[in-house]
Amino acid sequence: MRVVLLGAGNLGYHLATFLVEQAVDLLQIFNRTPQAAVRLSDQLGGCPFTTDYVTIVPDADLYIIAVKDDAIPKVAEQLTKALGSAIFIVHTSGAVSSNVLAPFTTNYGSFYPLQTFSKEVAVDFQQIPICLTADTASNLLLLEKLSQKIGCTSYIITDAQRKTLHIASVFACNFTNYLWGISKELLETEDLPYEIIHPLIKETVRKALINSPVDVQTGPAIRRDEATMLSHLEYLKSEPDLMKIYQLISERIAGKPFENKLTEL
Amino acid sequence: MRVVLLGAGNLGYHLATFLVEQAVDLLQIFNRTPQAAVRLSDQLGGCPFTTDYVTIVPDADLYIIAVKDDAIPKVAEQLTKALGSAIFIVHTSGAVSSNVLAPFTTNYGSFYPLQTFSKEVAVDFQQIPICLTADTASNLLLLEKLSQKIGCTSYIITDAQRKTLHIASVFACNFTNYLWGISKELLETEDLPYEIIHPLIKETVRKALINSPVDVQTGPAIRRDEATMLSHLEYLKSEPDLMKIYQLISERIAGKPFENKLTEL
Repeated sequence: MRVVLLGAGNLGYHLATFLVEQAVDLLQIFNRTPQAAVRLSDQLGGCPFTTDYVTIVPDADLYIIAVKDDAIPKVAEQLTKALGSAIFIVHTSGAVSSNVLAPFTTNYGSFYPLQTFSKEVAVDFQQIPICLTADTASNLLLLEKLSQKIGCTSYIITDAQRKTLHIASVFACNFTNYLWGISKELLETEDLPYEIIHPLIKETVRKALINSPVDVQTGPAIRRDEATMLSHLEYLKSEPDLMKIYQLISERIAGKPFENKLTEL
Repeated sequence: MRVVLLGAGNLGYHLATFLVEQAVDLLQIFNRTPQAAVRLSDQLGGCPFTTDYVTIVPDADLYIIAVKDDAIPKVAEQLTKALGSAIFIVHTSGAVSSNVLAPFTTNYGSFYPLQTFSKEVAVDFQQIPICLTADTASNLLLLEKLSQKIGCTSYIITDAQRKTLHIASVFACNFTNYLWGISKELLETEDLPYEIIHPLIKETVRKALINSPVDVQTGPAIRRDEATMLSHLEYLKSEPDLMKIYQLISERIAGKPFENKLTEL
């Protein structure tokens, strides 16, 4: 399995490192600018790199585009201009349909690692589900072989499923993280350490992973404890956005609106 | 340390079990109705119980009221009617000021285990921070001794701090759990298993506990990727509440409103 990786950003960095660790034959790294490419090449013990499309290795089994969503078509266009329209290209994005590659090549798909990547945080790639989409059965097979080689669990999904997955991840990951941030801010206004609610967060996630979250919902909203909810909204009144978030989510949990009372505040 | 526990509900059950395990002298359990009291008494190897205030043991060091928030004053009133107004009473509520006990006794406070309790889920009580409030230094000392005896980390907090803590917990625990529920529902509409995002949830919480959540925020909103956000809102258009939650939280994360564009949908 001979792979070329395009993009030495956050995901590209983690993915390339892991591919090499798992003895995948990473032929070359491409990056638009040299700085990140040099850094990644060094990290990989001198893996060849280029910043010029015309010097990209032509005979790889797979070209993985790991760049920002809106740059994917442009990279695919340049890549196929240099290497022809028969190469197998996948992107790594949750938000973009694999069809964006269709104008450029007859072999395309998506290799989407469902995880959140931060620059300086090491990830255990083998714990990451890889979501695979391809235009043909044989291309899908090649992606499955790559997943197997690197020891990842893979799921074969459609573009529509990947879109849903991405939206579900925004709720389950990005938004929950934001709520923890709100929580930390609220605690700090009263000189309470963020660590005080760590055990609560851990237990909440533990229960939500071994149950259906709806079955282990707790708190004032599910008890329809309007006195407590009103007192919380009163407390939040200097922060209209937080009030709105509190009210909206509480009403959804309670399964009924109580706007008349809340808007009295 | 001689303790009487009032309330054999969810928290009462877990707390009593733990106190006895940690060799606290639990003199008696009170519950308004016999059924739960009998069950708990059996669980504790025959701990005495009563359903009648006049037979409550009069000489305990501490009376812990673990009942629903709105029943706390009534229980305190009946208890002090039977035993006088010098006994030391605490409640276990995050939402209620310890002052609600002040009309009934000269010794009062709060013993608030900061955790989420589900009936059939065993909890590791020693991992739970206990938040302590009391009207006098000597009463506080007694609560601290109890926390120490049972091996828990305790925090001395004011009523105002406990209220903030409770609100912060609603955001950090109840609301995040609800978002995971939304996420699961979205996945199911596309025949995707909830388990597919478990690694993502685990990694998100892991990062949020070793960092400040705001420093590890990821997703379309923090990138101000409006194309992706608009496409997600379009996808959610049959669910106006989810659209509103998505828009509100995304705008907060992005640090700017983009209402004109979003309300075009």
